[in-house]
Amino acid sequence: MSKNVLTNRKLFLLNDDKKLEDGSKVVLTGWVRTNRNSGSIGFIEFNDGTHFKNVQLVYESSNKNYEEMAHIKYGSAIEVNGTTKLTPDGKQPFEITLEEFKLLGDCTDDYPLQKKRHSFEFLRDIAHLRPRTNTFNAVFRVRNALAYAIHKYFQEHGFMYIHTPLITGNDAEGAGQTFKVITDLKHPNDFFKANASLTVSGQLHVEPFALTFRDVYTFGPTFRAENSNTVRHASEFWMIEPEMAFADLNDNMDVIESFIKYIIKYVLENCPDEMKFFDSFIEKGLLEKINHVLNSEFKRLPYTEGIKILEEAVKNGHKFENNDIFWGMDLQSEHERYITEQVIKGPVFLTDYPKDIKAFYMKLNSDGKTVAACDLLVPTVGELVGGSQREENYDILKAKMEELGNDKGLEWYLELRKFGGCVHSGFGLGFDRLLMYITGISNIRDVQPYPRTPGSLRF
Amino acid sequence: MSKNVLTNRKLFLLNDDKKLEDGSKVVLTGWVRTNRNSGSIGFIEFNDGTHFKNVQLVYESSNKNYEEMAHIKYGSAIEVNGTTKLTPDGKQPFEITLEEFKLLGDCTDDYPLQKKRHSFEFLRDIAHLRPRTNTFNAVFRVRNALAYAIHKYFQEHGFMYIHTPLITGNDAEGAGQTFKVITDLKHPNDFFKANASLTVSGQLHVEPFALTFRDVYTFGPTFRAENSNTVRHASEFWMIEPEMAFADLNDNMDVIESFIKYIIKYVLENCPDEMKFFDSFIEKGLLEKINHVLNSEFKRLPYTEGIKILEEAVKNGHKFENNDIFWGMDLQSEHERYITEQVIKGPVFLTDYPKDIKAFYMKLNSDGKTVAACDLLVPTVGELVGGSQREENYDILKAKMEELGNDKGLEWYLELRKFGGCVHSGFGLGFDRLLMYITGISNIRDVQPYPRTPGSLRF
Repeated sequence: MSKNVLTNRKLFLLNDDKKLEDGSKVVLTGWVRTNRNSGSIGFIEFNDGTHFKNVQLVYESSNKNYEEMAHIKYGSAIEVNGTTKLTPDGKQPFEITLEEFKLLGDCTDDYPLQKKRHSFEFLRDIAHLRPRTNTFNAVFRVRNALAYAIHKYFQEHGFMYIHTPLITGNDAEGAGQTFKVITDLKHPNDFFKANASLTVSGQLHVEPFALTFRDVYTFGPTFRAENSNTVRHASEFWMIEPEMAFADLNDNMDVIESFIKYIIKYVLENCPDEMKFFDSFIEKGLLEKINHVLNSEFKRLPYTEGIKILEEAVKNGHKFENNDIFWGMDLQSEHERYITEQVIKGPVFLTDYPKDIKAFYMKLNSDGKTVAACDLLVPTVGELVGGSQREENYDILKAKMEELGNDKGLEWYLELRKFGGCVHSGFGLGFDRLLMYITGISNIRDVQPYPRTPGSLRF
Repeated sequence: MSKNVLTNRKLFLLNDDKKLEDGSKVVLTGWVRTNRNSGSIGFIEFNDGTHFKNVQLVYESSNKNYEEMAHIKYGSAIEVNGTTKLTPDGKQPFEITLEEFKLLGDCTDDYPLQKKRHSFEFLRDIAHLRPRTNTFNAVFRVRNALAYAIHKYFQEHGFMYIHTPLITGNDAEGAGQTFKVITDLKHPNDFFKANASLTVSGQLHVEPFALTFRDVYTFGPTFRAENSNTVRHASEFWMIEPEMAFADLNDNMDVIESFIKYIIKYVLENCPDEMKFFDSFIEKGLLEKINHVLNSEFKRLPYTEGIKILEEAVKNGHKFENNDIFWGMDLQSEHERYITEQVIKGPVFLTDYPKDIKAFYMKLNSDGKTVAACDLLVPTVGELVGGSQREENYDILKAKMEELGNDKGLEWYLELRKFGGCVHSGFGLGFDRLLMYITGISNIRDVQPYPRTPGSLRF
């Protein structure tokens, strides 16, 4: 392959740095997004995958290959030989005058992507081709940037990345049905000599590492076998689960706030064109929403205060779909949104939830009724992050686990409270839902490369 | 929690920068690794998880809490109030004079980690505690650094990270038995309405993204349901699979060489103490081995030449366990090692393997007999990376897939060759085996946080 091939990315970078010169010879390899011509002049929108923006190739009827150029098909792969032309007054800051081209890979007429607008439903059926559309191109670029921002934040802050296992013998949170992992339908436990299932959370497995390395995180796939066909449920999705030793609930909230702001900032700085695209075509006001989070101080409000606010709202005539507000209830999205959107008007941690609606490993507060949990609520979605201080008291945790009957098989987890245990905290967030929030995409199927949902496994 | 807590890491960094001052008050929180005293003076090896090295705490009989300090148990979590003391002539460059301490979490007497040396077998049974030993502490630190180095390399080189799915309907390489994913033993296909299994490779799923974004990579868990109880086989392990459009076999080898050197360099620079530890206690000569790879130009040698070399060796009396050398054979580790260790004396790509011993998607060379594959062989292990140019010719690939009977369900994969296909290449390497190579650890069970192997799912 030619070693002197330039890229879209490099061209735009040179242009941004005012270093792109007029009349330079360039070689590019990439794909034709559109090709139209007026008979005397033609335009190809060209993209080589390295930048969200296309580069415009222009060919003129004076070119001896004009007819061939006019017939290059939408979707095909070409090698371009051309010359840069700065067009500071044009729609694009520069274009390439196409001099010669080589067809590297043709595109047949049954190419399902056409110039018209396709529905997201249609595009889901061609998951192998939809990244080539503007929307999915932008989605997967932001997905990449967001994933890297997450690693970058934790690495720069001294957290160690731990690969917690996906095949597991215990259902961490009892959080719903799990997928079984077997080799033989007749002898399902033969391979591992145990009930094996796909993990729903890496938290329990990562805690031993926090109690060694202090600050750690997992970032990997998790699974739910729920038969839920909603826009927010997938059977397979990625989760981020940091865990910190010698950190209490307040430390936890400090880190969550710093983390969320860091990754949003990274995406805004590294995907400005993509974010503008989402703001224009996917969710009007998206950038304002995101910037508002970035510039807000995250408030902290006890659950008990939250309930009072909701009771007050109902008393004053606000109608929730579920208007039966009482201390001990599990808040629904409408309640969370009311608090963050109408009352706080910004991100807010709700803290210290009733113990009965939260997970067994959360730290029991001294009131004996609440646990040291914190859910981060943000406008337009409600809960974005869930965290807690963990129960470090051996006897309290043991009693709780025996009561729930999940002590068998988790003796090792309980033991952490006997062998140099300490105050520790952590949080979890679903990567795909975070990506939905940041891009404005409303269906989880449209932020994953190959979504897995009930009945759906074509790719 | 105290906001002014220092860390081991910070102390060592200050010391390295000659900024650590004598007589500074410090607060630390962490764990006691050892505690010994002579009656008049005591020493605690203290580690808070932020650095591979311990900090030495010294307490003297003049301290009113001397007796309590002498009884702090190995394994317990403490908060330390002390004063820095520079000891440039000592074994450690500095120590902390312990003035006061607070017991944050005691350690009971049945703590399974004792001061004596434990066998790796024993430690596997306490996977939740073994990171606290020097060896596993070092292993998981290097694991973290290596994982981040991989992301850093690809991000800096413009590759996009793609999360390929773990639950899949097709067995990419026919590479051995797969785990089935089900919810109901009686109706195994009910959930997805298809045969669902755990992926053995993300390559087929990532190719569509290379044909959009040019340079992409996956880095995630993969699974093998092989009933192999060897030191190199695990049922669950992480794989790195980059894929590049407009890249041929030579481009592929250029990237592999640049990538391997980058990540080794990153680990050497970021984990110098850990690497010295492995060199001293795990594999004598490890650093020399690693540095040799870093400083070698990777050679390239056709498989056919490799076979001639092996035939010559046998003729000259070299005894392989398998001495039956012929063109078309699949090389075993002893053959690979002979070539890289005895003949090339350094890293070497073996290229252009017989088509029948390689995967269906590899590019058929013009000789009609070999494919454009490249395996990177390195001294002491043999194959470290496997890669190839992919078959971009629709008709050749279709015929091959029909012959193998894997065309059903993979129509989308084949379609990539109709819709703007192009020359493209990629490679794969097992992350855990790479980590074994870099640390000198000889059993894959000892480089994974919670290894999954046949019959083993305790954690």
